[in-house]
Amino acid sequence: MTIADRWLLPDGMDEVLPPQASRMEELRRTLLDLYHRWGYDQVMPPPAEFLDSLLTGTGSDLALQTFKLTDQLTGRMMGVSADVTPQVARMDAHSLKRQGPVRLCYCTNVLRATADQHQGGRSPVQVGVELFGHAGREADLEILHLALASLAAAGANEVHLALGHIGIYRSLVQAAELSHDQERALFEALELKSPGELAARVGESVADPALAEMFMALGRLHGGPDVLDAARDAFAEAPAAVAAALDQLSALHEGVMAAHPEVEAYFDLGELRGYEYHTGMMFAAYVPGYGQALAKGGRYDDTGRAFGRARPATGYSMDLKLLATLAPCEPPDDGIWAPAEGDGVRDAVMALRERGERVVQALPGQRTGPDEHRCSRELVQRDGQWHVVELS
Amino acid sequence: MTIADRWLLPDGMDEVLPPQASRMEELRRTLLDLYHRWGYDQVMPPPAEFLDSLLTGTGSDLALQTFKLTDQLTGRMMGVSADVTPQVARMDAHSLKRQGPVRLCYCTNVLRATADQHQGGRSPVQVGVELFGHAGREADLEILHLALASLAAAGANEVHLALGHIGIYRSLVQAAELSHDQERALFEALELKSPGELAARVGESVADPALAEMFMALGRLHGGPDVLDAARDAFAEAPAAVAAALDQLSALHEGVMAAHPEVEAYFDLGELRGYEYHTGMMFAAYVPGYGQALAKGGRYDDTGRAFGRARPATGYSMDLKLLATLAPCEPPDDGIWAPAEGDGVRDAVMALRERGERVVQALPGQRTGPDEHRCSRELVQRDGQWHVVELS
Repeated sequence: MTIADRWLLPDGMDEVLPPQASRMEELRRTLLDLYHRWGYDQVMPPPAEFLDSLLTGTGSDLALQTFKLTDQLTGRMMGVSADVTPQVARMDAHSLKRQGPVRLCYCTNVLRATADQHQGGRSPVQVGVELFGHAGREADLEILHLALASLAAAGANEVHLALGHIGIYRSLVQAAELSHDQERALFEALELKSPGELAARVGESVADPALAEMFMALGRLHGGPDVLDAARDAFAEAPAAVAAALDQLSALHEGVMAAHPEVEAYFDLGELRGYEYHTGMMFAAYVPGYGQALAKGGRYDDTGRAFGRARPATGYSMDLKLLATLAPCEPPDDGIWAPAEGDGVRDAVMALRERGERVVQALPGQRTGPDEHRCSRELVQRDGQWHVVELS
Repeated sequence: MTIADRWLLPDGMDEVLPPQASRMEELRRTLLDLYHRWGYDQVMPPPAEFLDSLLTGTGSDLALQTFKLTDQLTGRMMGVSADVTPQVARMDAHSLKRQGPVRLCYCTNVLRATADQHQGGRSPVQVGVELFGHAGREADLEILHLALASLAAAGANEVHLALGHIGIYRSLVQAAELSHDQERALFEALELKSPGELAARVGESVADPALAEMFMALGRLHGGPDVLDAARDAFAEAPAAVAAALDQLSALHEGVMAAHPEVEAYFDLGELRGYEYHTGMMFAAYVPGYGQALAKGGRYDDTGRAFGRARPATGYSMDLKLLATLAPCEPPDDGIWAPAEGDGVRDAVMALRERGERVVQALPGQRTGPDEHRCSRELVQRDGQWHVVELS
């Protein structure tokens, strides 16, 4: 291969150069500090685990996205983490084993074999929080608040919040006593957002006319907060769990609006993202100009069951790489340029650094100058003393 | 597999739980801030790249340690980064293409297929710096100073610094006109640190008695600073490059002692770690109680040649996981416990968080209390006002 080929990076495996890397580091700190103040403890999951534990209870999407490795020490298959959430659920269920609510946060690289339309590159820096051990709407509301606070901290304006609840579809499927194949066909029709396709599949599978009408309503019920009122009519005869899901969405909406009146809320009751995984409310936050959601989350109870402890769970995750592009990246040109040599220059340089200054010391023979190193000041010696002076 | 099996992590793939993860985050910030003050710009290399660019010019050790992946998009082989240094060299040579000295730093997860005796686990968090574009000893000295400053910032006492120079062995090999096989045999004998084995291999390969004696000296020349004097005698008739290497080691030693008189310096002129990779001085820093080096580095000029631009380079790397164990991890119990409900409690909680306080809000029905959440204070309502009070 030629030199030109050799450096080309695989599609979606991005490097981050200065100054954008510093912007990401700054945002990482802002978010982890925010989570600390909200009582979330940081964890660092391993970048690879045995495939069995990595994919337990997560559904087939994650299996396709997970790079597989052979562990040379055991011969067992490992996977490179493609989503931190199941790892954190394992840590809560098995490693921490704490009683009561547990709040955890993380920020780490993950790697994805393929990128789907909901995601950016194949090497996101996943940052997020998980709240385990509480099944109530207060936990979901805390998660929503924290997601919105994260976006605000990252500099997002005009946030659009899409809310849904997987329990509505699940309850209807249960009431209609659908076979697995029928359920898959309906699921796919809803995912396609095609009313014709949905009508055809409902016609094939759902005998009860009232239930059939409710499945059709799922395809229509998206839009502003009045969707919830329309849903109450459409699902008046639905199982009680549907009314409970709608009540929960109303309460969450009210809670969000009280704290974030500027947020535009949107409901999509036919949204089934993460169907094999989610168990309650789901949300995604969008910002104009970004084709993908900047934060995605929801409730996913019982993921820990495979690890010996079923626990209620709710949380969200974001891609730090994407989030860091919300605000402009303008590194200050505030460095101090120091000469390579001079009596006592090292002590003067070290004293400035101790005081928090960024000091770039020239190396003998160096041809580049302060401009190339974002220095607006210079360390100069006058009358045996070192002074910092502004560069013109 | 059983539940007990499922969560077991692969050997050397560690998870980091609270509070150790916070300790690591804190040290990450301390080190990256230190590097910023020294003029090093942060970069984030991709966690996986095409194998050709990842392994170019790095030698066979890294090839063995690199997990291989098939890129489903191109069918080409990728590797998961096992060492960030060659990636950063590629970024300097090809992505940044800056003139003059370039200072870069990083802190990121890497993954290793095998762990050798010089390393800890297979999932270190590699943190380090690289200084490109300057071939002089001033650059090497800056790197040594910064490595020692890093260890001090991490809480290391009693640092032992081992110094060597790959140029000595290289010059002798060149003078003796050894074949590749002879060179490998000598290399292995030196690595074994076995005088008998070394004598046998030297006897086979090195005809010139003076050169043979010098190769034998390499096996003996390790110890305190007087090793350099002994080396000047032993290598008096050696090629000029050997004397230059010894001069450089003396100068580096003097520079280190001037700034860090507490450091115990040690020389090993037969040390050939990273032989295929290093081109000049090499160092490793040890702390009592740790079986492996806490910082390792040295000069590795011309790594960028494969990417179109040969550049002088010197730097070091460390494992943040290991470094973070140098100081005790004692998270403060300074949180504020807030009730789940109450008139205006949310505003009171948010105001405290705005002021930087860590506030853990109870969830309805929660059975665990402030103790389990590191809270020594409580938010209580008295006369319609919210107050923070110490818990007894």
